[in-house]
Amino acid sequence: MNIHKRIQNAALHPKIMPAAQAASLIPLGANVGMSGFTGAGYPKAVPQALAARLSALHAAGQTHASINLWTGASTAPELDGVLAKAHGIQMRLPYQSDPSCRQQINAGQMRYTDMHLSHVAPMARAGFLGTLDVAVVEVVGILPDGRMMASTSVGNNQTWLDLAQHIILEVNLHQNPALEGMHDMAHNMPMPPHGQPIALTHPSERIGTPYLQADLSKVMAVVITDHPDRNSAFDAPNEVSAQIAGHLIDFLQDEVQAGRLPPSLLPLQSGVGNTANAVLAGLNQGPFDQMTAYTEVLQDGMLDMLRSGKLSCASATALSLSPTALAEFNANIDFYRQRIVLRPEEISNHPELIRRLGVIAMNTMIEADIYGNVNSTHIMGSAIMNGIGGSGDFARNARLSIFMSPSVAKGGKISSIVPMVSHHDHTEHDVHIIVTEQGLADLRGLAPTQRARLIVERCAHPSFRPQLLDYMDRAQRSGAGLHTPHLLDEALSWHSRYLKTGQM
Amino acid sequence: MNIHKRIQNAALHPKIMPAAQAASLIPLGANVGMSGFTGAGYPKAVPQALAARLSALHAAGQTHASINLWTGASTAPELDGVLAKAHGIQMRLPYQSDPSCRQQINAGQMRYTDMHLSHVAPMARAGFLGTLDVAVVEVVGILPDGRMMASTSVGNNQTWLDLAQHIILEVNLHQNPALEGMHDMAHNMPMPPHGQPIALTHPSERIGTPYLQADLSKVMAVVITDHPDRNSAFDAPNEVSAQIAGHLIDFLQDEVQAGRLPPSLLPLQSGVGNTANAVLAGLNQGPFDQMTAYTEVLQDGMLDMLRSGKLSCASATALSLSPTALAEFNANIDFYRQRIVLRPEEISNHPELIRRLGVIAMNTMIEADIYGNVNSTHIMGSAIMNGIGGSGDFARNARLSIFMSPSVAKGGKISSIVPMVSHHDHTEHDVHIIVTEQGLADLRGLAPTQRARLIVERCAHPSFRPQLLDYMDRAQRSGAGLHTPHLLDEALSWHSRYLKTGQM
Ligand SMILES: CC(C)(COP(=O)(O)OP(=O)(O)OC[C@H]1O[C@@H](n2cnc3c(N)ncnc32)[C@H](O)[C@@H]1OP(=O)(O)O)[C@@H](O)C(=O)NCCC(=O)NCCS
Ligand SMILES: CC(C)(COP(=O)(O)OP(=O)(O)OC[C@H]1O[C@@H](n2cnc3c(N)ncnc32)[C@H](O)[C@@H]1OP(=O)(O)O)[C@@H](O)C(=O)NCCC(=O)NCCS
Repeated sequence: MNIHKRIQNAALHPKIMPAAQAASLIPLGANVGMSGFTGAGYPKAVPQALAARLSALHAAGQTHASINLWTGASTAPELDGVLAKAHGIQMRLPYQSDPSCRQQINAGQMRYTDMHLSHVAPMARAGFLGTLDVAVVEVVGILPDGRMMASTSVGNNQTWLDLAQHIILEVNLHQNPALEGMHDMAHNMPMPPHGQPIALTHPSERIGTPYLQADLSKVMAVVITDHPDRNSAFDAPNEVSAQIAGHLIDFLQDEVQAGRLPPSLLPLQSGVGNTANAVLAGLNQGPFDQMTAYTEVLQDGMLDMLRSGKLSCASATALSLSPTALAEFNANIDFYRQRIVLRPEEISNHPELIRRLGVIAMNTMIEADIYGNVNSTHIMGSAIMNGIGGSGDFARNARLSIFMSPSVAKGGKISSIVPMVSHHDHTEHDVHIIVTEQGLADLRGLAPTQRARLIVERCAHPSFRPQLLDYMDRAQRSGAGLHTPHLLDEALSWHSRYLKTGQM
Repeated sequence: MNIHKRIQNAALHPKIMPAAQAASLIPLGANVGMSGFTGAGYPKAVPQALAARLSALHAAGQTHASINLWTGASTAPELDGVLAKAHGIQMRLPYQSDPSCRQQINAGQMRYTDMHLSHVAPMARAGFLGTLDVAVVEVVGILPDGRMMASTSVGNNQTWLDLAQHIILEVNLHQNPALEGMHDMAHNMPMPPHGQPIALTHPSERIGTPYLQADLSKVMAVVITDHPDRNSAFDAPNEVSAQIAGHLIDFLQDEVQAGRLPPSLLPLQSGVGNTANAVLAGLNQGPFDQMTAYTEVLQDGMLDMLRSGKLSCASATALSLSPTALAEFNANIDFYRQRIVLRPEEISNHPELIRRLGVIAMNTMIEADIYGNVNSTHIMGSAIMNGIGGSGDFARNARLSIFMSPSVAKGGKISSIVPMVSHHDHTEHDVHIIVTEQGLADLRGLAPTQRARLIVERCAHPSFRPQLLDYMDRAQRSGAGLHTPHLLDEALSWHSRYLKTGQM
């Protein structure tokens, strides 16, 4: 009964079935597009049932039984985790942050196509990624006419529903039906040569309908679940992250003073993680009012800012809330529905909109080099951590592109400022500001050797600064070109030393 | 008389003066925004007079007398060349390709801020690059009401006129007055938070007026010149470039056949250089009709395609035509005016438009690595060649991002496919297709180790292929992470070996 209140389209009732039965309908080797963006809005039951089925097949000798898994971004242990542990994913795109996935990718057992999130839907629609066989999408409910109430993330859901040959819906009774109306879907995005402007000029505006849509004749199963999302809690801001936040807020105040930013700043984008969350906590205490956000994930810090009124509205593609924040969100969902818009990641991360709105992008990095190139994805050049995600969409198109990190990692054995990054995700051209707990380097308009001096002096940890200055000086005296002087035999030696000795 | 026909605004007549006098009005140390994009539409007289003045000052002991030079992109010997030779440029942005500039940058005598061309105008307007003191802009003529007929390139001219405190105009009698009407200026581009959609949906559309505008009270000098643009001639396509063109056209045909591209393709962008021009020559003989171009520079190859009817229209920011092609263009300018739109580089290179139109980007590179990262700018990691220019604007936002190069350089001593590029301009995420005379690698949707095998097998020169395969195999067996396996002690050793021995 409760179930029929959530699934009001009667034609779908006969398709209600257990997760195991639905999972058995997914062909081996299929390209499967699942919902999920961070630990929000991912299917809770079918992936686990699929993992069990694949494990059984492996035990029975079909050792290669697996699927290719496309999602919005990272998901949760009940999706990426179980499928990876079951050796059930042959190829994964466009982003992951799961320990088991990571382990398998770095062991050469899972192929991983790490993509700019704004590229995923257009490339899939263009047929560049192959055919999508099955979509598995969590929804909150289905209206009589078949329109679907989207869940706590949007990601690529509408695109998967459009492209897939077959659809499995998970209706999650645990998700709040009052989410209805918070989403803004863009249907039938016209493809080149028929492209049209996207008519958004403010983070709070809407251009589509609140509902997911699909050709219901493609639905082969409807599965009922009743499970909460699973996002982890954030650490309380520590001294290092508070110092990073402090430098950043000082800088933004200076920009406002100089007339280069309006008093309520410009729409904020914030990466995930503890440092990013600490910066939001700082902004919530800081001097700016009537701020807005145009971001990928909405985490605890932004919810606090909405509640305090510092933030007047936020646009995102997923709610990346800790269990405590999610409870508060659900308790006050009418307040938040007036202030939050959840969009497809193609829209939340679209270069057209990020540039038009003039977003202030604040992302976390693994390391930067003296010239301001940034590595967001790889540990010591070869091993993947998570992926580029939306960081490139925002950094390249932002009004201000800020990257931050503690100046050292692994208890001081690693410097986050190195002669040359071991992997390049964001080039010098896309990095305006670097911040560590040591300070902030404003690189706008500077040439490489000027950037180098500033980054080392402002951002590097004092214990690594002399070696960095020594590298710079010797590179400049080496006879190599003086535009971006490098000693090629030494440029990656810090990483190599760490791999050999456990210390840079 | 002829002069007053070109300068119809009488208020400007008293400001007509010799170039030397105009050049003397430019303050030492000023930020000077000049017109010019490739050897087209740059001021022909004031830079030479300024160079003479600076040389004289240097001789008199003022050894630091110089300016900071902002332009559209590269210019010509009469601008970059003379000022560099006079040691007259302290800092240069956003792009250059002049031998004297290059030499000074690589000698540490000129600072160079190499920027995405689409970033320049917005960053300048936001005040991120400092104050623009003087604009020096070539125009074809001035109407009675002060509106100006733009020249053979647009670049950042309108932005320089808007931002500069003082303006010097060069009216070049040699430029064809029939250029009038070919341009489409975007005036008063609103800045965030007031951004609006850019209403272009086809390369041939217009959104502004054909004229440059300025507050004439800022004009401190008008200088008359009568000199041709100076773009060099292209080499005739050779065997290598013809093979590259052949692979590319085969690929495009396959895409049309597979339904992933329309029969008349999508708007073409083509980098400059001989290889790019050879590809255009190939397309002019090839199977596609009713093509369009949305590109940065319009070179000889595209003019041929317009004339043959293969190309129905072209949008660009500069006419990069050899003297022969320019003569033909001027002889048939009424034909071309109906088919060519010249725009500000902020529009020609805008991510919003490149993505909406679904541009096919075809750029030349210096080298690529096995994972598909591309170096467009640096020789052996440290020395600048030209700069990133618009290649990043197009590669990141294109429907199809293609990079091409001969597989070897310097008579076979250098492999253009290396274990790791010595400088990263375009990361793996922005490179769909790599082409050399050996073949074409289609990297869409592939994971790094798959990309590596394809690039080495299809694109590397046979004389370097075994060493590349050996590097890949040893990296995969080294115990480093298997997502992007690298041997950090060896990754840059090919470049290092070349620097030491003259041979990779
Ligand atoms: C870069 C990124 C990994 C940082 O995440 P974070 O949670 O803030 O960072 P942490 O400091 O906790 O570091 C994560 C791990 O990397 C390690 N690390 C950090 N810096 C390192 C460095 N320079 N070298 C080696 N390891 C490093 C940490 O020690 C930690 O390791 P552990 O998991 O073994 O403890 C994360 O932001 C990311 O994946 N970014 C890419 C995508 C993105 O930017 N998305 C934003 C949305 S638009
Ligand atoms: C990459 C680029 C330099 C290639 O230009 P090109 O004229 O097609 O290339 P060439 O083959 O003539 O090479 C230019 C020089 O680089 C050298 N070169 C080429 N590949 C090399 C390599 N892998 N290693 C070292 N040197 C190399 C050539 O030998 C030549 O040197 P020379 O001038 O001493 O003879 C040029 O396209 C560029 O500057 N691109 C960046 C900007 C851009 O893409 N703009 C497009 C507009 S959107």
